[in-house]
Amino acid sequence: MPLELPIRIGPAYDDALCARERIKPFVKRTPVMTSESLNRIARAELFFKCENLQKVGAFKFRGACNATFALSDDEAKRGVATHSSGNHAAALALAAKLRGISATIVMPKNSSTVKIEAVKSYGGDIVFCEPTLQAREETLNAIVKRTGATFIPPYNHCLVIAGQATATLELLEDAPELDCVVVPIGGGGLISGAAIATAGKSPSTKVIGAEPKNADDAYRSFKSGKLVPQTAPDTIADGLRTSLGNITFSIIRRYVADIFTAKEETIVQAMKLVWERMKLVIEPSAAVPLAVVLERNAAFAGKRVGVILSGGNVDLSKRFW
Amino acid sequence: MPLELPIRIGPAYDDALCARERIKPFVKRTPVMTSESLNRIARAELFFKCENLQKVGAFKFRGACNATFALSDDEAKRGVATHSSGNHAAALALAAKLRGISATIVMPKNSSTVKIEAVKSYGGDIVFCEPTLQAREETLNAIVKRTGATFIPPYNHCLVIAGQATATLELLEDAPELDCVVVPIGGGGLISGAAIATAGKSPSTKVIGAEPKNADDAYRSFKSGKLVPQTAPDTIADGLRTSLGNITFSIIRRYVADIFTAKEETIVQAMKLVWERMKLVIEPSAAVPLAVVLERNAAFAGKRVGVILSGGNVDLSKRFW
Repeated sequence: MPLELPIRIGPAYDDALCARERIKPFVKRTPVMTSESLNRIARAELFFKCENLQKVGAFKFRGACNATFALSDDEAKRGVATHSSGNHAAALALAAKLRGISATIVMPKNSSTVKIEAVKSYGGDIVFCEPTLQAREETLNAIVKRTGATFIPPYNHCLVIAGQATATLELLEDAPELDCVVVPIGGGGLISGAAIATAGKSPSTKVIGAEPKNADDAYRSFKSGKLVPQTAPDTIADGLRTSLGNITFSIIRRYVADIFTAKEETIVQAMKLVWERMKLVIEPSAAVPLAVVLERNAAFAGKRVGVILSGGNVDLSKRFW
Repeated sequence: MPLELPIRIGPAYDDALCARERIKPFVKRTPVMTSESLNRIARAELFFKCENLQKVGAFKFRGACNATFALSDDEAKRGVATHSSGNHAAALALAAKLRGISATIVMPKNSSTVKIEAVKSYGGDIVFCEPTLQAREETLNAIVKRTGATFIPPYNHCLVIAGQATATLELLEDAPELDCVVVPIGGGGLISGAAIATAGKSPSTKVIGAEPKNADDAYRSFKSGKLVPQTAPDTIADGLRTSLGNITFSIIRRYVADIFTAKEETIVQAMKLVWERMKLVIEPSAAVPLAVVLERNAAFAGKRVGVILSGGNVDLSKRFW
């Protein structure tokens, strides 16, 4: 009779610990900040992990760094590649630069100048394509085939998730005995990392997902038990418009306690509160956890709550309020 | 023949050390942050002391706290008072609240709602007056006469200066062997504190003043050796529109190595750079030192430069760029 071995999908706690050692020389140990005034407003004790102060201005650098430095020398010398127009693109470009290898970034040709400049400033080689998912994938495949570069996806990837887990590992060290940690969900990489870090380091801490009501694919997937793709997201939180992947969804189903959604106006209000009271520039996606804490206050009142401020890359010429 | 003793004007290093112990339980030890991208732009190694993250959002809390907690119990129970419409008003209100005493703040009746709300939120008792210096002083004098409250001025005061010195003490601890520290000058309280802290702790570090070109009373006073009052300042750096006092001027003359001015457009550019690259919300006054480093780059290139980010209280509904 064959032994029934548990099937392990995705990374686990030891992968997070390993990622931590691997990326330590390259990432910033970002501070955990508190604000008496926000505690009063939220009627809870909040601990903000400031990944807006991470290199590249977002947690994404952790995962990109872990995946890039995990490559063998042979793999590495053929470079890395991805398709992205957001923080992952800039993060991968910088990680590759630090390893001394090339990063090819496929970007839709209608990407904003700000984003193109960011990738360029970290030394990424940009290849433009038509603004469709099919064009992005085809262009990327052709590059991988031609150069032998390794494709590093933005979230649905064990090493990327293990890298993102290190943000929560540090948070749990600096703010022990949290009742819960609230994490934004886009593709699910950050919360999957939070889940494996918490399961290993502080199993009594609940992991709560935070999503815009107007881009609630993870909420619907979580509640229905079936992976629901994102359709027509209409949210200011531009980092959270993507769908979950199969790996991130399986981790979320297994470890996440609940997912709450927040309205657009609460997201903007939360973002403004962090700028105003904490003097921190955060992007709309990073405000969604605080928005959830404010909107679903009964679930958080009186508790010790970790909040991951996932990034701070905003176009400062925009008006948000 | 009588002994010629040196006359001591203003506070000295031991007053700064004493202030530090006195206010330690109440102030935040703010972080010193760095930015590779700003280092590249400024061609220097910059160490930013983040007083925008101080309580009340500005270094002013240190001085107000030191003066308030230095009062005897008898003095304290009669309360404190000041006239101010800026950060000092909010700072004194909070310091008094923490000591459990009353703070009466005389404010011009045309003060902005944001500033009035800030003072109220820290429990200050506001007395409105006509928007003239004479009305402010008369109203304050009447209150002091009636209540016996102690007047805590915003900068020209030994205990206030000694309190502000603690910001530079901490900076010099966290970033040793600085070639210079660049400090904004309004009334001169912060730079006077920086001067006495540096003289005692790191005498080889030069103290450089930073002023808007459009409000350059300190520059003109320093160069002429005579206290020149501010006339018609026209600068976005609203915290730096005041004149020096006799105590702050005497300390500046004695200890400050030089004062540089910056143009309005460089101040705005520096402010935007800090928001964008460091993800920190700072007020225009706090951007003046970086503006000076950019505009007078030859004086700073290749050096280890401390920069005091003095505060982060901005009206977020305003457009700065």
